[in-house]
Amino acid sequence: MSLLVAKFGGSSVASLEKIHNVADRIAEMKGQGNDVVVVVSAMGDMTDDLLELAGNIGKNLDNREMDMLLATGEQQSASLLALTLAAGGCPAVSLTGWQAGVKSDGQHSKARIIGLDTARIRDELDKGKAVIIAGFQGISPAGEITTLGRGGSDTTAVALAADLQADRCMIFTDVDGVYTADPRIVKEARQLSSITYEEMLEMASLGAGVLQPRAAEFAMLYGVDVEVRSSFNNNPGTIITEVAKMERQRSVSGVAHDCNVARIALFDVPDQPGVASIIFKILADNHINVDMVIQSAMRDDRNDIAFTIERNEFQKARAVVNEIVMKIGASGMSYSVDVAKVSVVGAGMQSNPGVAATMFDALARKDINIHMISTSEIKISCIIDEDEIEAAVQVLHDRFHLGETD
Amino acid sequence: MSLLVAKFGGSSVASLEKIHNVADRIAEMKGQGNDVVVVVSAMGDMTDDLLELAGNIGKNLDNREMDMLLATGEQQSASLLALTLAAGGCPAVSLTGWQAGVKSDGQHSKARIIGLDTARIRDELDKGKAVIIAGFQGISPAGEITTLGRGGSDTTAVALAADLQADRCMIFTDVDGVYTADPRIVKEARQLSSITYEEMLEMASLGAGVLQPRAAEFAMLYGVDVEVRSSFNNNPGTIITEVAKMERQRSVSGVAHDCNVARIALFDVPDQPGVASIIFKILADNHINVDMVIQSAMRDDRNDIAFTIERNEFQKARAVVNEIVMKIGASGMSYSVDVAKVSVVGAGMQSNPGVAATMFDALARKDINIHMISTSEIKISCIIDEDEIEAAVQVLHDRFHLGETD
Repeated sequence: MSLLVAKFGGSSVASLEKIHNVADRIAEMKGQGNDVVVVVSAMGDMTDDLLELAGNIGKNLDNREMDMLLATGEQQSASLLALTLAAGGCPAVSLTGWQAGVKSDGQHSKARIIGLDTARIRDELDKGKAVIIAGFQGISPAGEITTLGRGGSDTTAVALAADLQADRCMIFTDVDGVYTADPRIVKEARQLSSITYEEMLEMASLGAGVLQPRAAEFAMLYGVDVEVRSSFNNNPGTIITEVAKMERQRSVSGVAHDCNVARIALFDVPDQPGVASIIFKILADNHINVDMVIQSAMRDDRNDIAFTIERNEFQKARAVVNEIVMKIGASGMSYSVDVAKVSVVGAGMQSNPGVAATMFDALARKDINIHMISTSEIKISCIIDEDEIEAAVQVLHDRFHLGETD
Repeated sequence: MSLLVAKFGGSSVASLEKIHNVADRIAEMKGQGNDVVVVVSAMGDMTDDLLELAGNIGKNLDNREMDMLLATGEQQSASLLALTLAAGGCPAVSLTGWQAGVKSDGQHSKARIIGLDTARIRDELDKGKAVIIAGFQGISPAGEITTLGRGGSDTTAVALAADLQADRCMIFTDVDGVYTADPRIVKEARQLSSITYEEMLEMASLGAGVLQPRAAEFAMLYGVDVEVRSSFNNNPGTIITEVAKMERQRSVSGVAHDCNVARIALFDVPDQPGVASIIFKILADNHINVDMVIQSAMRDDRNDIAFTIERNEFQKARAVVNEIVMKIGASGMSYSVDVAKVSVVGAGMQSNPGVAATMFDALARKDINIHMISTSEIKISCIIDEDEIEAAVQVLHDRFHLGETD
């Protein structure tokens, strides 16, 4: 007998009909002799509807109260799923986050799981029940209902799988798995049968939101194999696992791209110790996330510093950077919101030093100009003009032969 | 400084606008220097909507799961009210039943409060907060979320008022208070300034559902004065209290009526010990509530037995009674669904023996025929034809001068 942990997202439980389909799938797993623990998100747009409702009350609402409100969404979907299972003859019980023993810190709206007490879950499994857990929520040391923030249901599933030593952790979602590139851009894009945790983290933008980064980190930390698969068909998904378990080392696994990028450059920044830290501390204090940073020595004692941020933070950032220019005595700034980032990602890149050169050559042959480059151990990213992003993704996918089977 | 407990029903919190009005009222109480504990029901039709949704899943749904589902309604209204209060500058915190320490037995869907642990509530009051509690729910010894069944929010408020030794317990509802008769029938009907617990229990049908019987019983048991008043205006309501605190003894306080009545009679029931117990045990086993019972000796060794039930249980009852007729060897049965019950209620009736005679005389003068009579210490009820009920209520209201001020 195996223990399976399965997570179903909001789109998979958006209506009673869809909940029925999920129930059928769970009953099938149970029928095959498995113990099943299920984590569910709120139905479809429920969370957004509650946010909108509360938005009419005012701004800057208390996070503790918002958590009380939002946590009801998953409690509803969990009980509806348990009722549907029972009506179909499959014994089931729903548990809130606190009943399931999901202990979190007290950071309302973005709490982190700090521990699990799965005694109740094991108890219900021993009774032969499918255990349905309201995702996205926990209980703080003070006894408050918390929500776990973005990707909280994924993280709950992975954490439970680790604690329960589950045989499999499955994330059911509305995509089939992780692809070598966005299939809307590259028609030869192919679903990967497996991918490493690190690659998953770097490719978050491939198959948008397939597995939330925090859940991937959790899986990596506890060595939980996670299968991302579609809740709408029975096709095998993509297994996210550690390098050692990968069938075959590839130098490049996929091509990611991101258009939510803006680029800001500061000119003639005095080359003094501490200047960079001033710049990035001010940005951090204003909650502006900086992605890539490049510093280039231009003339004596003066540098240019360029960095990228999320495009939707650009207006806020521009005002902040104007202040910074004055403060540090730079000569000026330039910016562009018409840029995008294309990346090649692969755990096998480390042992294949030619990847960067191949990437730059492929882009050059298409006359795609590179504005910025940054590299990590398993990823090489280039900032290019946004209107060339589709061509860039396609040419890199071709050049690294990603359309061919492993 | 006083401690006030206030309960607001579903119609009082049916929209954000109404929640805003409730918040204004609470802020006003707080502004006058009071500590305030508020119990809320779910918004408007929320509970019915959830019941309807679950009804699509199947029949005979598990009560434990239904409680998980339904309890979200009050959690939502409580958090929305706390958010609204905070947005208006009044510090507030919402608590679920379990957070508020409302301990119940494990009878899902109709749990009873078995204890309170109000430490958290006192703690929040000490911090200067309005404490908003999700009504209608508790936690069982097994750690399950329960719902308290009909009138559960009223009962929560009364129980909390008793435990917290509140100075006042106010039930805000959509009526102004308890009337001497249904104002839709008797235009001179007058709101009572006070009424005893026992009268309230007997007059449950006056001002339909003003205070649930279980809450009235709880109030009587713990000696909590309860004020029933409108959430839509600032008029004083009706105070439900003990006899000793009543300003003035009246022989009759009000005229109640009930049209949800059907009458069944068994003819020629053998006059043997145990026959009555057989009849009423079978009815009870079939969950048919019997209200009035009359046995009249007619001939040697044979009786007629007549009783009333709720009209909406009539179809079920008729089949059961047919069986009973066969079983006990009665000669037959008759029934009527066109009857209704009119009652005069008054704690002072015991010391005024003429009340029954006056009632019968008043009905006789209007040519209203009485089919059955039953009396208790503080109530006299008559079954009459339903089409005469309005005339009966009016003539009794007149005859006992109930339209005149105390």
